Amino acid sequence: MAFTLAEDRLVETMRTQATIGATEDGGLHRLALSDEDKEIRDWFQEQMEAAGLDTRVDEFGNMFGRRQGEDPDVEPVLVGSHLDSQPYGGIYDGALGVVAALELVRELNDRGIETERPIEIVNWTNEEGSRFQPAMQGSGVWAGAHDIETEYAKTDVDGTTFEDELERIGYKGDVPAEPRESYDSYLELHIEQGPYLEEWGSDVGVVTGIVGFVWGATTFYGEADHSGPTPMHYRSDALVAAADVVGQVRRIPGTLGERTVGTVGYMDVSPNSINIIPDEVTFTWGFRDPEPAVLDEAKARVLRECEVAAEREGVDWEWEDRMRVDPVHFADRCVGAVEDTATELGYDASRIFSGAGHDATHANAVCDTAMVFAVSEDGKSHNESEYTSWEDCYKAANTVAGAALELAGRVE
Amino acid sequence: MAFTLAEDRLVETMRTQATIGATEDGGLHRLALSDEDKEIRDWFQEQMEAAGLDTRVDEFGNMFGRRQGEDPDVEPVLVGSHLDSQPYGGIYDGALGVVAALELVRELNDRGIETERPIEIVNWTNEEGSRFQPAMQGSGVWAGAHDIETEYAKTDVDGTTFEDELERIGYKGDVPAEPRESYDSYLELHIEQGPYLEEWGSDVGVVTGIVGFVWGATTFYGEADHSGPTPMHYRSDALVAAADVVGQVRRIPGTLGERTVGTVGYMDVSPNSINIIPDEVTFTWGFRDPEPAVLDEAKARVLRECEVAAEREGVDWEWEDRMRVDPVHFADRCVGAVEDTATELGYDASRIFSGAGHDATHANAVCDTAMVFAVSEDGKSHNESEYTSWEDCYKAANTVAGAALELAGRVE
Repeated sequence: MAFTLAEDRLVETMRTQATIGATEDGGLHRLALSDEDKEIRDWFQEQMEAAGLDTRVDEFGNMFGRRQGEDPDVEPVLVGSHLDSQPYGGIYDGALGVVAALELVRELNDRGIETERPIEIVNWTNEEGSRFQPAMQGSGVWAGAHDIETEYAKTDVDGTTFEDELERIGYKGDVPAEPRESYDSYLELHIEQGPYLEEWGSDVGVVTGIVGFVWGATTFYGEADHSGPTPMHYRSDALVAAADVVGQVRRIPGTLGERTVGTVGYMDVSPNSINIIPDEVTFTWGFRDPEPAVLDEAKARVLRECEVAAEREGVDWEWEDRMRVDPVHFADRCVGAVEDTATELGYDASRIFSGAGHDATHANAVCDTAMVFAVSEDGKSHNESEYTSWEDCYKAANTVAGAALELAGRVE
Repeated sequence: MAFTLAEDRLVETMRTQATIGATEDGGLHRLALSDEDKEIRDWFQEQMEAAGLDTRVDEFGNMFGRRQGEDPDVEPVLVGSHLDSQPYGGIYDGALGVVAALELVRELNDRGIETERPIEIVNWTNEEGSRFQPAMQGSGVWAGAHDIETEYAKTDVDGTTFEDELERIGYKGDVPAEPRESYDSYLELHIEQGPYLEEWGSDVGVVTGIVGFVWGATTFYGEADHSGPTPMHYRSDALVAAADVVGQVRRIPGTLGERTVGTVGYMDVSPNSINIIPDEVTFTWGFRDPEPAVLDEAKARVLRECEVAAEREGVDWEWEDRMRVDPVHFADRCVGAVEDTATELGYDASRIFSGAGHDATHANAVCDTAMVFAVSEDGKSHNESEYTSWEDCYKAANTVAGAALELAGRVE
C-alpha cells in the first residue's frame, strides 16, 4: 500500500505555521530575517527537535534536520523548501513544502519506518528575495552560486545588512553554508503559482525542469520641463519612451514561444510631479522561457525597442543586466520517482515545466533533483488571495513524501 | 524719453535674491514656507521698508508694499510675482517679477517721479504648488477662488499644515487675505518658460492670455501575480494599461490644436517589484489649450483611451478630476499698455499666449491684468538649467515698469 501522510495533522501544521506573520486578509507577511521569520524558525526548530531530528543551522541561516538512515554513511535525500514569504503573500508558497517534509519525518516516526539513506529536511533562507536580493539566496550560497561575504553585505531598503539581521534574529549558525557531504537527491514540493494544473484538471504536477530567466533594467533620460509652456515637439519625455517599451514587453513573448513571458514589474518616475515632464524613468524588464536561445532573443529584442523608443522621443538611455539564470532540466530518476509515486497513489499527474525559479534551481547543481507542484487556484501567488485546497495540499504532500521514501529506500 | 530701470542694480538685486536657497548647481531650492522662504521674505520686507513703502502682510502670507500716489483714494496699480521656487528650480522664475517691481519703486524714488495712482508691489505666497497644493495658492485665496480655511489645512508630504508653517516662519499677517480696495490693474513679469520668444527672435513677450488646463488621475487595478508562472493570456497588468494611455496622451495634442499639450507627469506603480505583475497603477494626465472646448475634448479622449486600455488588458479602472482652470484673456487696455511700452523702448515685442498658469490668472478675476514675458533660453524652467540673459531680464523689467508707470499715470 502506498505511503501517505496524516491528512488532519498536515492541515493543522499548515494552519499553525500560517498564524506566524498572519495578515488581516488571510495572507502571510513573513519577510526574510524579520521578527516573524525568527518566530517561524523558532517554531520549526522546536518541531524538528520534537521529531527527534539531528538539527543544524548553517552560517547563512539555512536550517537542516536529519533523520538517520540504516547506513549513516550513504548519501542522504534532502527534502524541503522555504518558510519566508513575499510582502502580504500567501500561506502556501514555500511553507507547504517545508510542512510536507516535516510531516514526512513525523509519519515515518509514527509508523516506525526506517530508510536506507538518511533523510534531511531543510528550510532555506530568503527564497523570496523581496527584502534582500537575490531570490533563492540561501540555497544559492549553499550550492556555491553566490559568495557568502557578498550576500552578507546586501542591504534592505533601510540600509540594514543581511548579516546584521541574521545575527539579530539568532540564526547565523556555526556550520559552513555548503553541502556537508554528497547528497543523493533533493526533492521540493511547491505550489505551482500558475494556472496549468487547474486548467488541465490535474491532481499534482510532476516538474521536469525550471524555466530560465533574464532580467535587466533600462533608464531613459529626458528633459524635466514645465508641462504647460513646453510645446509637444520640444519635449524629450522619459516616461513616454518607457511606456513604449512596456507595450513592447507585453507583445514580445507572443512572437517568441508558447511558454515565453515578459514583464515590467518595477518603474520609478522622476521628478514624478503632475506639472513636470518626467526626465528620468528607470524600469525593469524580465523574460522567462525553457530555452536559453529564446532568452537571448527576448533580451536582444527589448534592447532594440529601447533604442527605437529613445530615438523616437529624443532621450538618452542606458541599461544594465540584473540577473540571468539558465533553464534547469531535472534528472530522469528523480522525475520518475515523483511520477511513479503519483501514479501509485492514483493521482492524475501531469508533467509540467516550472515558470518560477525555486531553491531546486540551485540544489540541482549539487545533486539530482525534482519537484512536485500543488494546484494553485487561478494560478494566483505572491499575494493574499493565493489558494490551494487542503485536498490538493495533501495529494502533493503525499507525492513528495512517497518519492522521498522511494529515493531513500524503505527498509522492509 | 522712455522710463528705464538701473540695469546694474537690477542684476545685483537678482543675484542677491538668488543667494537665498541657492543650490550647488546654480539653481534655487526655496520651497513655500520653508526656512529659505522666510529668509527671502525677511530680505524683501527690508527692501520694501528701505524704499519707503507702506507694507502689510495678509493672513495668508501675501506681502504688499504701497508707494502712495498723488491721489491716495484712486485705485492702485498692483505689480509683482512670487519669490518661492520649485524644488531645485531656477533663479528667474517668479523672482524676476518681484525684483522688477522692487526696482520700479526704487527707480521712481531715485528720480523723484510721482504717479497719479498708488503703485503696490506684491510677493504672492506659494505660487509653485510643489510643497502645498494647489499652485498659485496665495493669489487664489486673495482673489476668492479658494476658501482660506481649506487652504490653511493643506499638508505637505510630512503632514505639516500650511497654517502651522506660515505661523512658524512668522508670516501669518493680520490683514484679511482679500483685495483691500478696488484695483485699477495688475501687471506681472515672468519668464516665458517656453521656447517661442527665442524661436521668434523676440526681445519680450506681450502676453494676451493664459491657456486653461484640465488635470485628472486614472488608476488601473489588475492582478498581482508572479511574473514567472503566469502565462501572458492570464495577465491583467495595470502597468501595461497605463503605458497604453501614456502613449495616447503623447498623441492626442497633435490631433487637437497647435497650442495643445498633454502630459503624464506622475505615475505610481504597485507593488513595484521586478518579479510581480503590477496590480495597481495610478497616473495623472493633464492637457492645456487656449480654448475651453479643446480641454473638454482632450479629457473626453483620454478617458476613452483609459476605457479601451482597461478592456484590452482586462483591468478595472477609475478616474478623478484633479483641477480645471479655464483660459484667461487679458484686458485690451493692459495688453496695450505693455505693447506700447515695449514698442516705445524699441524692443521687438511679440504677442504670446501663456502656456503656464500664473498668479495673473487669479488677479484677472479682481481687476484688468496683463503680463510681460522674458525670453527663456531653450524654453527651460522648473529646473536648475533655467536661464534668461541679464539683457533679456532688463528688457522685460523695463517693459513691465514702463507699462505700470503708464497705467499709474506719471505726474508731470
